[in-house]
Amino acid sequence: MYIPTLADMRAARARIAPHVHQTPILTSRMLNQLTGAELFFKCENLQKAGAFKARGASNAVFGLSDDQARKGVATHSSGNHGTCLSYAAGRRGIPCTVVMPHTAPQAKKDAVRGYGGRVVECEPSTTSREAVFAEVLAETGAEFVHPYNDPRVIAGQATCSAEMIEQVEGLDAVIAPIGGGGMVSGTCLTLSHLAPKTRIFAAEPEQADDACRSFKAGYIIADDAPNTIADGLKVPLKDLTWHFVQNHVTDILTASEQEIIDAMKLIWKRLKIVMEPSSAVPLAAILKNPNVFAGQRVGIIITGGNVDLDSLPWN
Amino acid sequence: MYIPTLADMRAARARIAPHVHQTPILTSRMLNQLTGAELFFKCENLQKAGAFKARGASNAVFGLSDDQARKGVATHSSGNHGTCLSYAAGRRGIPCTVVMPHTAPQAKKDAVRGYGGRVVECEPSTTSREAVFAEVLAETGAEFVHPYNDPRVIAGQATCSAEMIEQVEGLDAVIAPIGGGGMVSGTCLTLSHLAPKTRIFAAEPEQADDACRSFKAGYIIADDAPNTIADGLKVPLKDLTWHFVQNHVTDILTASEQEIIDAMKLIWKRLKIVMEPSSAVPLAAILKNPNVFAGQRVGIIITGGNVDLDSLPWN
Repeated sequence: MYIPTLADMRAARARIAPHVHQTPILTSRMLNQLTGAELFFKCENLQKAGAFKARGASNAVFGLSDDQARKGVATHSSGNHGTCLSYAAGRRGIPCTVVMPHTAPQAKKDAVRGYGGRVVECEPSTTSREAVFAEVLAETGAEFVHPYNDPRVIAGQATCSAEMIEQVEGLDAVIAPIGGGGMVSGTCLTLSHLAPKTRIFAAEPEQADDACRSFKAGYIIADDAPNTIADGLKVPLKDLTWHFVQNHVTDILTASEQEIIDAMKLIWKRLKIVMEPSSAVPLAAILKNPNVFAGQRVGIIITGGNVDLDSLPWN
Repeated sequence: MYIPTLADMRAARARIAPHVHQTPILTSRMLNQLTGAELFFKCENLQKAGAFKARGASNAVFGLSDDQARKGVATHSSGNHGTCLSYAAGRRGIPCTVVMPHTAPQAKKDAVRGYGGRVVECEPSTTSREAVFAEVLAETGAEFVHPYNDPRVIAGQATCSAEMIEQVEGLDAVIAPIGGGGMVSGTCLTLSHLAPKTRIFAAEPEQADDACRSFKAGYIIADDAPNTIADGLKVPLKDLTWHFVQNHVTDILTASEQEIIDAMKLIWKRLKIVMEPSSAVPLAAILKNPNVFAGQRVGIIITGGNVDLDSLPWN
């Protein structure tokens, strides 16, 4: 297992600079009053392709040799990673195949295709996905870019907090949602070197709290088919992300479905941004644990903005 | 009638700097492809109090003498100007009274009160509003800050395009929604001096096209109770804003209600921002008149983000 380093993050930053936005930081006096903390929202929902995953995907794609690049990249993901890998591959002009269950939302398939990627459908089971994905790799020779358990991806996600600490001085804490742990691992990579006094928190839905239980148990626990509105956060930790979480995260906090929805609406209303339920989990956790953050300067990573406007959870 | 000058804009910019955000510019490759133009969205929905009107209101409030400031400010507005004047008065710690019909949405009354302002209700008629407002002025000695037909307000709104031309080089055109014409006048003030080659367009709902008809007729035409989802754009031009529109605007384009709603949803989906129907009128007009903007670099002012999340027009 190769653990990505600060040098990998720096190389990633230079490599992906032409392909990603430096996303803005937003603040709200009202949300500061409500939480008793000073909050700085890092808006990766405004990132290319609508999610921070454009960073890791771009780093993986643009780090390939020309020989490998010609064969393209592939992944299995019905979420933002598939879209972002297609985006990055499109920028480099190479093939991208994304395996997803035929039951995935049409919008997700359209998003992959919109950036030029190919969607290959499988049955909604792990067995089918693995079989179909193996076929894709055998047939294309494409490079597998895992959604999070990949050092290139983590080094890419790590560029987000490198930007954030240049944009906001003296952060006492940073909090990000945790699913597979790619963003949290990248945050750990960067901050443990460049801002070692800044505490790192992860936030997770109560109904998909496998990372929280893993953290307490000291070993990886994977849930069987968790159910939460924060659909980007259903996947389990893997060895590489577990390494970072175990060594650098201060605590993992959870929030209920209703608390997530309330925080999401609050952010839409006050910050005037469109973001996913997953991105609301950190604010929900802060509102639930005000004493942990009171009086502190807290960076919150808004991870993505790809949400179905036709079925908002408060309607 | 005092016509505000470039010096007034510059004074406004220094005066309001501590009280307003320099708002970011967002771009979307997909929206560029769709329109055939290069679009730069100036996000005043991310402005303090959720609208560009924080600029003009702050300039008026912070330009008052201490003697006048003690007596406070007053306006009549059931829209963003009332909220933003309350915001600015709150920052200076002076009284603010906003007269609005008792039929105005509760959220608008709450927004004024949330910043410390006082709401005085009138009947939903011009006669009642004028009578009640006269009483408020007599009773308080407050300074009347008109929502748009006020040189201090226009000089404040003019700071928006001064920022924009620093953030984006070589704009061929700028387009903003037009209601009373405060933002468009400020844009004219700044660009006619600092970027005289940049053409200025205004965009208006077909169902409230009084500015368009005025522009064609050569004199102010005021509609009687226009009805549009773009509720910030129902008010008529006044002498001061008419001066700027008449002298500096290239054209006024219109869009239907459905075109406005479609453009609004497109912006939410692609730019991941929450904004008002009024703010979608420029993109709707560009989509309707692609030949006017093809191949050009176009600045679009997203004027505000105060929208009722519980009743979105596409649901």
